[in-house]
Parts: sequence; C-alpha cells; structure tokens
Amino acid sequence: MEEKLQQLKERLATIADLLRAGAVLGWDQQTYMPPGGVQARADQISTLQRLAHEYQASEEMGQLLDDLKPYEAQLDYDSDEASLIRFTRREYERETRVPGDLVAETAKTVALATQVWAKARKENDFASFEPLLSRVFELQIRWAECFAPYDNIYDPLIDLYEPGMTYEKVSAVFSGLKPELVALVAALSANQDAVDDRPIHQHWAQDSQLAFGREIAAALGYDFERGRLDLVPHPFTTAFSPDDVRITTRVDENHLASSTMGTIHESGHAMYDQGVSPALYRTGLDTGTSFAIHESQSRLYENIIGRSREFWRCFYPRFQKAVGKGLSKVDMETFYRALNISQPSLIRVEADEVTYGLHIILRFELENDVVNGRVKVTDLPKEWNARMEAYLGITPPNDADGVLQDVHWSFGYVGYFPTYLLGTVFSVQLWQQMLKDHPDIPAQVEAGKFETVLGWLREKIHRHGRKFTMPELAERVVGGPLDWQPYIAYLRAKYGEIYGL
Amino acid sequence: MEEKLQQLKERLATIADLLRAGAVLGWDQQTYMPPGGVQARADQISTLQRLAHEYQASEEMGQLLDDLKPYEAQLDYDSDEASLIRFTRREYERETRVPGDLVAETAKTVALATQVWAKARKENDFASFEPLLSRVFELQIRWAECFAPYDNIYDPLIDLYEPGMTYEKVSAVFSGLKPELVALVAALSANQDAVDDRPIHQHWAQDSQLAFGREIAAALGYDFERGRLDLVPHPFTTAFSPDDVRITTRVDENHLASSTMGTIHESGHAMYDQGVSPALYRTGLDTGTSFAIHESQSRLYENIIGRSREFWRCFYPRFQKAVGKGLSKVDMETFYRALNISQPSLIRVEADEVTYGLHIILRFELENDVVNGRVKVTDLPKEWNARMEAYLGITPPNDADGVLQDVHWSFGYVGYFPTYLLGTVFSVQLWQQMLKDHPDIPAQVEAGKFETVLGWLREKIHRHGRKFTMPELAERVVGGPLDWQPYIAYLRAKYGEIYGL
Repeated sequence: MEEKLQQLKERLATIADLLRAGAVLGWDQQTYMPPGGVQARADQISTLQRLAHEYQASEEMGQLLDDLKPYEAQLDYDSDEASLIRFTRREYERETRVPGDLVAETAKTVALATQVWAKARKENDFASFEPLLSRVFELQIRWAECFAPYDNIYDPLIDLYEPGMTYEKVSAVFSGLKPELVALVAALSANQDAVDDRPIHQHWAQDSQLAFGREIAAALGYDFERGRLDLVPHPFTTAFSPDDVRITTRVDENHLASSTMGTIHESGHAMYDQGVSPALYRTGLDTGTSFAIHESQSRLYENIIGRSREFWRCFYPRFQKAVGKGLSKVDMETFYRALNISQPSLIRVEADEVTYGLHIILRFELENDVVNGRVKVTDLPKEWNARMEAYLGITPPNDADGVLQDVHWSFGYVGYFPTYLLGTVFSVQLWQQMLKDHPDIPAQVEAGKFETVLGWLREKIHRHGRKFTMPELAERVVGGPLDWQPYIAYLRAKYGEIYGL
Repeated sequence: MEEKLQQLKERLATIADLLRAGAVLGWDQQTYMPPGGVQARADQISTLQRLAHEYQASEEMGQLLDDLKPYEAQLDYDSDEASLIRFTRREYERETRVPGDLVAETAKTVALATQVWAKARKENDFASFEPLLSRVFELQIRWAECFAPYDNIYDPLIDLYEPGMTYEKVSAVFSGLKPELVALVAALSANQDAVDDRPIHQHWAQDSQLAFGREIAAALGYDFERGRLDLVPHPFTTAFSPDDVRITTRVDENHLASSTMGTIHESGHAMYDQGVSPALYRTGLDTGTSFAIHESQSRLYENIIGRSREFWRCFYPRFQKAVGKGLSKVDMETFYRALNISQPSLIRVEADEVTYGLHIILRFELENDVVNGRVKVTDLPKEWNARMEAYLGITPPNDADGVLQDVHWSFGYVGYFPTYLLGTVFSVQLWQQMLKDHPDIPAQVEAGKFETVLGWLREKIHRHGRKFTMPELAERVVGGPLDWQPYIAYLRAKYGEIYGL
C-alpha cells in the first residue's frame, strides 16, 4: 500500500508542477509579457492544463484511488495521507463526471463570451451579450446536471467553488443578513453628512505608494523572501509553491488608500498560501482550501485589521510622512473616518464593507433564479436594477454599470460570487475567536505587532492547506457553522459609531 | 498520410509548449523569482523537461516517424514538412539512443558538479573539483559511445551542439586560424601603447545605460512589441515563441560600453528568433538552428556592426549626450579606438575580438585530448596554463582565473565551446556576402538604417528556423563551407589599422 501511495504522490507532484507552471505563465502574462506573446501564451497554458487534466482524470488515477480505499479506511481522517486521498478522489470525480464534449464546448463558449462581454460592457449593449450569456448559463446547467442527485441544481455549482456548501447553507446565511444590511445601509445613507472623504482623494506618487504598500505587507508578516509585489491592471495573488507566493497591485495616484488597502488584501491571501505545511508540498493540497476561506484571510487583514483605529494609530504617522504635505493637517481620526466612508454605489469591486454584501446577495439570488428557470437571461437587466433599487436605494443608469459590470459570468463562473461574502462573514467569526484566545490583539496591532495574529491563523487555518473544507474548518476553529450574526453586529458597532447612529 | 503528419504536428506542439513553458520558468528564475522559489522551480522545470522527453522519445513518436518515411521520401528536402520530419527524426534518435540510467546519472552528477565547481572556483581549489570533473568527462564519453561508429569520439559531442560538424571539420577551421591569431596577438601586444582605453572606464548611471541600450536595440530592429529587456547577473536571450523573445543585460556602472555591447549581442540572438517563419510555429523548428549560427548573428551585430566606425559615426553624438560630461571632450575616433582595444587577458568572456578565438581553440584542443585519453583531468591546470602562455603570452596566476573559469564543463557541456568561434568565423563570411549583395550597407549603417541588414539575414538565415544545419546554411548562403580566411583578413585589416601595424 505504501507503494501505491507513493505512486499517487508522484502523479500528484506531476499535476502540481504542471498547474504551478501554468500559474507562472499566467503571472508573467499579467505583469511583464510583451503584447506579441498573447497567442503562444494561450497555447502554452492550455497545453499545461490539458496535460494536468489528463493525469487527473486518467484510468491509472482511478485505479490507484480504488486500490487505496481499504488503506484510506484505516487512516485517521485528519492525517495528511487520508486528506490527500480524500481530496484527490473529490477532484477525480469532478474531472471524470463531465463529458469531454461539454467541457470542450464550454471552453469555446466562454472564450468567445469573454470577448463579447468586454465589447458589450464598453458599448453598454446587453442585447449583444445576451445570446452568449444564455448559452453560458445553459452549459453551466448541463454541467450541474452531471452531478445529480441534488436538492437544487445550483448546489453543484456552489460546491465547485466552495466544497461542502449548498444553496440551502448559503441561503441560511444570506437570508438572515439581507434585511439587516438593507436596514443598516438605509440608516447610513440617511446620515451621509457624518463622514467627509475628501482628505483621501489627493495626489500621491506611484513609487511612494508602492514603497509604503511593501512596508505594510512586510509588517503584517508577508514574506518578501518568498514573494514579491508587482504592478498589474487587475490585482491578484498567485502561488507557485508555498515558498513563492506573489502579490500584485494597481495604483491610483489620486487616491491615498486604494493601493495600500489592495496590497493588504492580497497580503492576506498570500500569507495563507505561504503558511501551508511543508509536508503538503507538491501534493495539490499546498494552497488555500477554498475561495471563501481565502477571502476570509484577505478581508480579515484588509477590513478588520487594516481599516481599524488600532492599525492606523500605529501606521498613520509614517503614512502622513510618506504622503507629505497633503496630510500634514489631517488628523488620524479624520483620516480613519474618510477611510471608512460607506455609501451605496454601483460597482461591486468599489463597494465598502457595509454595502458589499448586498451586491453579492443580489447576484446569488439572480444566479439561483436563472439556473432554476425562474428568471430569463433577457430579463436580467430589469431584475438587476430592481434589486439594486430595493437593496441599495440606487438604480444603475445603464447596464455597463449594472448587470454587465462583472467578468465572472462570461468566464462561466456561476456560483462563485457567494464565496466573497461567505468569506467576509467568516472573517468576523475568526476574529472573535482569535480575540477570545488572545484578548490583547488590538493592543498588539496598535503596537505594530502582528506575530500573534499570523501565528494563530497559521495554526488554525493556513498550515492545513486543502485538507479540510470550509464547513469542516468552521467546525474545528469556531465550533460551528457559518454565522451571519457576529458579522452584522461588527458592522453595526463600527459604522453605528462612525455615523453616530 | 496527411493524418499521420497532423498527429506528428500535434505531438510536436505539445512538446514545444512544454519546453517553452520551461523557458518562461527559467527566465523568471533569472529575473524576478524571489529566493524562496528555488526548490519548487527546479522541480517544475524538471517535470516539464521530463514530460517533453517522454513525448519526444515515445514509441508513438517512433511509429509515426516510421509511418511517415515513404511520405517524406516524396517531399522536397527544403519543404517545411520534409524538414519537420527530418529534424524530428534526428531528435528522436538522439533521445532514444542513450540509456535512461546514463541520462539519470549524468543529471545527478552535473547537479552536484555545478555546486562543487562554484565553490572550487571561489576558493581556487581545482583538486576539490577534479574527481567530479573526471566523472563528468567519463559520462560524456559513455554518452558519445552510444553514437558509434564515429571517426573521433569527440564527434557526437560536437554534433550535439552543432549538428553536421565533426572534429575534422572544426579542426580544418581552427588549425588554419591558430598560427595566424597567435601571430596577430603577438604583434598587437608588442604595440600596446597605440590604444588608450581610459575614456571608456567612467561612471554612467544604470538607468541611463539601460535606456540607451533599449534605443540601440530598437534601432537595429529588435522588436520590443515582441520582447523586452531585463537586468540579470548573467545575460542571455530566451524565446517563448517567435513573438516573445526576451533579452537581458547586466550593467557595470564604471564601464561605458559593456552593457550596450552586451545588449547589441543579445539583440542579434533575439532578432534571429523573432525572424523565424510563422509557418514553423510550435513545430520545434521555430527557433535558431544551432549555437554557431546563433553566435554568428550576435557577433555580426556586436562586433562587425557594433564596433565599427560607421556605427559610432551614427550613434556617438547621442551616446555622448546620454553619458554627459565625461565624454564631452572625447572625440569619436578616441572612443572608437578605446572600444576596440585588444590585449591578452585571462577570462574568455571578457576577451576582445582578436584574442577570443585562442581562448576557444585552447578549450577545443583540451576537450579533444581528454575525451581521447591523451590528457588526464588531473593535468588540465598544467595543460591550460602552458597553452595560455603559448597562445596569448600570459600565464594564469591561479586556477580560478584559469581552468576553473567556465561553468560549461560542470554542466556536462563538452563540445559546446567550439560553436562560439565557429559562429564568429561564419559572421564574417555572412557579412562579406551581404556586402556583395548590398555594397551600400556601410553607408546605411552610418545613416542609422538597418532594414537592409536585417532583411537580408531574415531572408537568408532567420526565416528557416531549424530547417537546415549550419553546413547546409553555409552552402546555401555563402556557397561553401566555413572558411577561416575571411575572418583573419577582417581582423588583420581592422586591428592592423587601429594599431598601425
């Protein structure tokens, strides 16, 4: 059996190397690749992914997993070996359930849809995108049908991005949260004059912004010996192993905080990947376990820590100095309030902590309605705008800033959006558990000390890599499932205070 | 048959993608990879190379090549299809002749040898490297024996780096050249006071050097839309497709020309790769055909053009301006002479045009003597120093600056060195042929116009990619084999004039 396990590990190492190599090529494409490289890069990445898939879905892999069943049954569920076999079996079943022609047609459709979407968004022309978007949803429905039986056809799609989650479980969180968020947004909206964010809209040179971002990331614990920061148009984090995890940022020279907050966000993702146990190296388990858990790390650092008074009490003097005279007469409290302004806005990626959740809930509801045939794709703009008005009190003036704003659906990512909010909700549960274990963490943050935070996350979350799903991690770390109540309480307390409710 | 050819092309595309992906990973490792990335990067590159080898040496590949034999026989030798099959068969035979255990042992040995060599060079301790170097030569001899019969066991090693060449053919060039070079070096050495290179040893800031290098590379015809320039410790050119060919440089802030001349050299390599016919994309033929032909391109641009009066008549005013006051009182002629100083020196990579050849001939002779058992590895330092004295009139004060200076042998590259000089020799033949076709090229260079040069090289050399070997290209382009006489005539004329012989 040891030999079979060894064979499995060797196959997994090959798959890992192929996928990681593809990630390096993707990073290069976003950062340094010259324009001429586009065609060859697409071919190269596609070949690496195809070979990885061939290894993952091969008969030999199925045979090995079958052979290892009795061995697996004797292992401790928490052990690296059992987790490895369990995880690989889940991936194998996903890779082999879907017929090749459906995979091929989806790939072709989304390649076209992404192009058409970009043009449609630019030209504010939903009608030109609608036929392809309908086709994408049809293909995603056919994909989901491969995983019958299920309670809701949306379930397999959600499970793809967030293993262990279902419509019902997500709904339990979002339906509790929604009326509370709508009420809080309305209350803040009624009190807009309480916060002035003009101090944050000032010029600050790119190089100085990047240097400050690097300083903050390093202070939080992001290891630059095992990573680096580069400029890109659309920031992301990518890992080539736990020892080479790279972050990216974009700089708006007329905004003092967007690049810094973005860098903190990506550092949160990156510290997760940097913290996976070396024992999981090259097994496919040596990365973050899911989108929601990843987002819980980035949001915890960006919002709960990075937008806190304690954090800025520590860093504001340095920040003031780095920015220069534009901030010399702005005190920390004024800056803190400007940084935490909350107001309904059209674009998800620019939304603040309070309004963000409603952007997600809207998409979750629409996805569920479309895949269940209750809303037609042609009606999406109308449905979108009605919900924006109902939840946030604003109506998009056009589809470009409404239903066309996100690239996800054109990629075929249906079921992905909920993970953003699930992660954000979980970040508050994690934070509260961390404070129970270490009540002095706010004082540590104010002193610029982040070792306890990172050490706790390493121990509870990071080191496990993909061994456990989000529901399993939640059970282990906070002793229960996702819970929206701490999250809304956190928002109410923080924003109630800022806005004087 | 069309179908078999299509199958072959698909396999070649997969192999090309794997090897090109490996090249991207190698480029990243040299340019931007953080220190922590080393281990995973070695694993990833090794996996990509292993998979490429598995495809190249597979039974299916052998079968396809067999099946295609009758088809190949009907094709025109010069056609893309015939060249593709011919080239692939040569690679297949090389990949399958050598037993796997020899390949594995060589890989292990050179990995260790490279580490030990680096330490030995640093500590000037040949004795510590000698056992591994002996082992490397033994393994290279065993490798060569797989390709029996041959006239000289050195032949298969030479053929690996320069297909179509043998000891006898190389020797025909080098043995004619050697006494002439020795005599020219002695004559110049006796007249050292004729050139003063102090004007070139001045401070010039890195950014300004890089900007000037980019300007020159672009003027020569290197396409930055399909490439880029980055800083590295050991400069190289690498291609991920003909549309993404990257160059690198290092900057010595206390030397005015080393980075610029290096950038011109790498641009010469890169324009070759950028000029391959699109019809050869992803076949494995879409890159330079051999090390010597590659070097003929880089040397033609670096030395024949880049170190000419015509070139600097065009660029010197801009160069003077870019460098600033250090050159304001140095006239072009003084700079031209300083740039072309020739004097015996210890280190090959720092050698000038005249002395360079003797560094290579020395290595060629020693490699031939070692693989034929006439010189023992333990005696290499003694043999090295004796030849340095005989050919260049100087004796290395230590092995670090003598027999230990190059990394090549520790990599197992025996038979590689000759290509540097073969390419340099060929560059002069190319240049003379080009001048026959376009006598006004020197005037064009002086006017900063390089389209005719590049167009001619594209037509005669670049577009063919790997379709033809160097001996084949020489026959097609200059109507005969490599000839050392134009080369020595070029050196004698140029340096005789500079040194007033």
